[in-house]
Amino acid sequence: MRLVVCFLSLLAVFGPAECGNVLVWFTEGSHWINLKIVLEALIDRGHDVTVLVPDASLFMQAKESDRFSYQPFNVSLSAQDVEDSFEDFLHFSMYEMEHLNLLQIHIKFYQLFSKDLDLSLKYCDGVLKSSELMDKLQHGKFDVMLTDPIYPCSEAVAEKLNIPFIYTLRFSIAHTFERLCGQMPAPPSFVPGVMSKLTDKMSFTERIINMLFYVSQDALAISLWKKIDNYYTEYFGRPTSFCEMMGKADIWLIRTYWDFEFPRPFLPNIKFVGGLHCTPAKPLPKDVEEFVQSSGDDGIVVFSLGSMIDKLDKDRSNMIASALAQIPQKVLWRYGGEKPDTLGENTRIYKWIPQNDLLGHPKTRAFITHGGTNGIYEAIYHGVPMVGIPLFADQPDNLAHMKAKGAAVVMDFNRMQIQDLVDGLNAVINDPSYKENAMRLSRIHHDRPVKPLDESVFWIEFVMRNKGAKHLRVEAHNLTWYQYHCLDVFAFLITILTVVLYIFFKMCKYLIMCCCFRSKRKSKKE
Amino acid sequence: MRLVVCFLSLLAVFGPAECGNVLVWFTEGSHWINLKIVLEALIDRGHDVTVLVPDASLFMQAKESDRFSYQPFNVSLSAQDVEDSFEDFLHFSMYEMEHLNLLQIHIKFYQLFSKDLDLSLKYCDGVLKSSELMDKLQHGKFDVMLTDPIYPCSEAVAEKLNIPFIYTLRFSIAHTFERLCGQMPAPPSFVPGVMSKLTDKMSFTERIINMLFYVSQDALAISLWKKIDNYYTEYFGRPTSFCEMMGKADIWLIRTYWDFEFPRPFLPNIKFVGGLHCTPAKPLPKDVEEFVQSSGDDGIVVFSLGSMIDKLDKDRSNMIASALAQIPQKVLWRYGGEKPDTLGENTRIYKWIPQNDLLGHPKTRAFITHGGTNGIYEAIYHGVPMVGIPLFADQPDNLAHMKAKGAAVVMDFNRMQIQDLVDGLNAVINDPSYKENAMRLSRIHHDRPVKPLDESVFWIEFVMRNKGAKHLRVEAHNLTWYQYHCLDVFAFLITILTVVLYIFFKMCKYLIMCCCFRSKRKSKKE
Repeated sequence: MRLVVCFLSLLAVFGPAECGNVLVWFTEGSHWINLKIVLEALIDRGHDVTVLVPDASLFMQAKESDRFSYQPFNVSLSAQDVEDSFEDFLHFSMYEMEHLNLLQIHIKFYQLFSKDLDLSLKYCDGVLKSSELMDKLQHGKFDVMLTDPIYPCSEAVAEKLNIPFIYTLRFSIAHTFERLCGQMPAPPSFVPGVMSKLTDKMSFTERIINMLFYVSQDALAISLWKKIDNYYTEYFGRPTSFCEMMGKADIWLIRTYWDFEFPRPFLPNIKFVGGLHCTPAKPLPKDVEEFVQSSGDDGIVVFSLGSMIDKLDKDRSNMIASALAQIPQKVLWRYGGEKPDTLGENTRIYKWIPQNDLLGHPKTRAFITHGGTNGIYEAIYHGVPMVGIPLFADQPDNLAHMKAKGAAVVMDFNRMQIQDLVDGLNAVINDPSYKENAMRLSRIHHDRPVKPLDESVFWIEFVMRNKGAKHLRVEAHNLTWYQYHCLDVFAFLITILTVVLYIFFKMCKYLIMCCCFRSKRKSKKE
Repeated sequence: MRLVVCFLSLLAVFGPAECGNVLVWFTEGSHWINLKIVLEALIDRGHDVTVLVPDASLFMQAKESDRFSYQPFNVSLSAQDVEDSFEDFLHFSMYEMEHLNLLQIHIKFYQLFSKDLDLSLKYCDGVLKSSELMDKLQHGKFDVMLTDPIYPCSEAVAEKLNIPFIYTLRFSIAHTFERLCGQMPAPPSFVPGVMSKLTDKMSFTERIINMLFYVSQDALAISLWKKIDNYYTEYFGRPTSFCEMMGKADIWLIRTYWDFEFPRPFLPNIKFVGGLHCTPAKPLPKDVEEFVQSSGDDGIVVFSLGSMIDKLDKDRSNMIASALAQIPQKVLWRYGGEKPDTLGENTRIYKWIPQNDLLGHPKTRAFITHGGTNGIYEAIYHGVPMVGIPLFADQPDNLAHMKAKGAAVVMDFNRMQIQDLVDGLNAVINDPSYKENAMRLSRIHHDRPVKPLDESVFWIEFVMRNKGAKHLRVEAHNLTWYQYHCLDVFAFLITILTVVLYIFFKMCKYLIMCCCFRSKRKSKKE
């Protein structure tokens, strides 16, 4: 029966192919939310999907879907340890960071990442060092491994199982993964490092900042990766580099597109599949629809700070509620905290909102967002202008993109006052340029030859069909850094040129001396 | 009626869109053969296509199809002048070049290209300086201009008409167009210059050769383009750079793909659509099919030196015929010269052959080809191994690609002997690796999310729908060369570092001196 489903479903989109076994490395948070969409699509097309889930996971629960085969593994961590680590990041990004200088931020980030990496390596232990589990995986005859590289070790599992692997990646800071390991060129003069909050149009000072950002992030990454290098070297019993192993990925599915990204160089095995989770809006629940319709011509504002932030402190929630009370639109606010005292009559609080369906509603005028990529892509998909309140991770950078493209205004979470939020909302709702730009991005998003989810599925199946995609892998992987930049060639050519010039000048000098000597002798004789 | 055709045909592939007016710049030879396929597809989808044709054209004749609107223009040249220029190139590449050293080749190429450019600028005169024609084009309300940039001036016409334009490009020597004008990164360490005959796996010496090839070709191109700069500057009445104007192209449709290319970096507005002209094989004419079937299990060999070379000198044709007579396969040879005396019974000469249908025939064992891209792509499409006899232009380089990918052996046209050709044919027919590699390339060719012709049409229509594709254009276009390479940033940082180090050492010196002075005074006192 499975074979029939497989055959029919594959035929429907790209013609006949074989159904396969997909192994999926665990991930967390919005990364998992996005990855699930691809896995569901693979299952719809008849493939078997097995997801590795640690017993200490915040987001991946076996209960979520019985369509995947979950393969649990043990880690010497509790879910609380993971949550604590995440809370440390959050607290630092949202509250501490702004009081520190650049060097202090850098040191603190190193400490946080280093601690996080120690936790990650315990997950590696849970899989790689469990001979029972590795045996089981070996016998699972997987065709491909799909993995979000924010947690390491999937590449080592793929190497051990001798199967090709595909990354699905939102970002690495300053593109360190893609540049240093994937060999993607990214000239710092017009490719702003992810998290730098810069755009592709940089002043001289900004280009200096971007360059220093690249250099500092590279140094940070390389020093952190040493831990993984040592882990891999010990595990495989031979000198093994994490970054080199990452470079073996057959395909990099990047979860953005040119509606969001500034145009930049890339490689044949990098595919931009941003917005793959977006779908047309479905009808709203009756009570929500009634509230939306009650907004009349003013329309509604949708407000969410994402799946990670459920509550705010009292002052901040009161400040935001006061601002929302001042606009003529009705507001739907996804919020898990106490009802703010200043909540206006136009604002309703919900524990959960059908965000995509609301953004796709014709009455929606604006989206107040923390700037997570999933939410931004839903806004782009439906052409809704944004008011950004970025909190942590890539959110400030994401919103810098939307601001540069004229589809958002951005607030400072720690400094914004009531009037700032009111002004921001009035701007994106009443200045038509924001809506026009959001609609332009929406057109770019929709107007592409293959839908992003179909493209993701295509390349995963391509790797399964062809046992990899080595024909897309640049030869740069086999060059040293000085060979890549032709420094050895330059050194050779400069040496040759110097020698030739030296001999030339020596000969000239000799000839001049000869002439002088002769003319002297001649004049002496005379 | 046209609107109905348009609506229905557009709906069939990519959903609804508006039909548009496409203006096409003239081109010649195999470039025109390939371009016509795209134009036919555009007409099938209901667009109006107007092709500019000079009265001195070798290939583009109004008779060819009445589906296009031909817009003739006058040039102060005869078809003979064009043919003579082409013959000069051909003769030099095929017979003279091998007797010259690198510097002489370089000088001769400069002279040939310079002469050719003078002819090309006469075509520009024919369009740009004919106010009557320019007025007519202005009133034609074109949505996009489609052009193969081997002949300049299309970009100036598009600028004058204020319409977006798209390049369809097979290659420029050492990627000069794409790199210098399109801002495509191409590190010489692993991106071999087109026409260098190098692969992506280069030894130290080869990397030196590649670097020198890039530098010399850049110098050649830049000095040649000065002529066009002057022409444009005079025409527009303001300083105008040909290369900068090329950089305004919205999309670059490159007529290759990763079945042929070595993987290398590219940009969001570069689309690889190689093999768009390939189609499944149709049944052969009855007499040809009978001859093919008479080959039994040995099968057939298809032989053509392309649309440009119809005849060979007697010695060479006899040599080739002798070699062909020695293989057990039947041979179908497209040849317009006299029947060679040594022609074997297994070989039949045809003025014209249905090349694609023959290459797609199950009895075909090998393809003897001059290595034109169109022919190579037909062989890739059908998975046929090749014996290459490259003659001129990109042919030696194309075949170097096929050889590196294990799907061809390559002969030297001027030096090959009977046994070389026999050995070459026996190798590709009897060593299974050649067939396997040809089939591997064929799989890569077919296994992509969008067919190349559909992808070409999609991006042409995208530009028409959206009045350009500026969201895919990298900011590198607005940087100087030293900004692009961050040389100003490096200079600044090095200066700062030097000043800081200088002050630091000065202070150290001062402190040491102070200490010494104190201790001396102390000891003096004591």
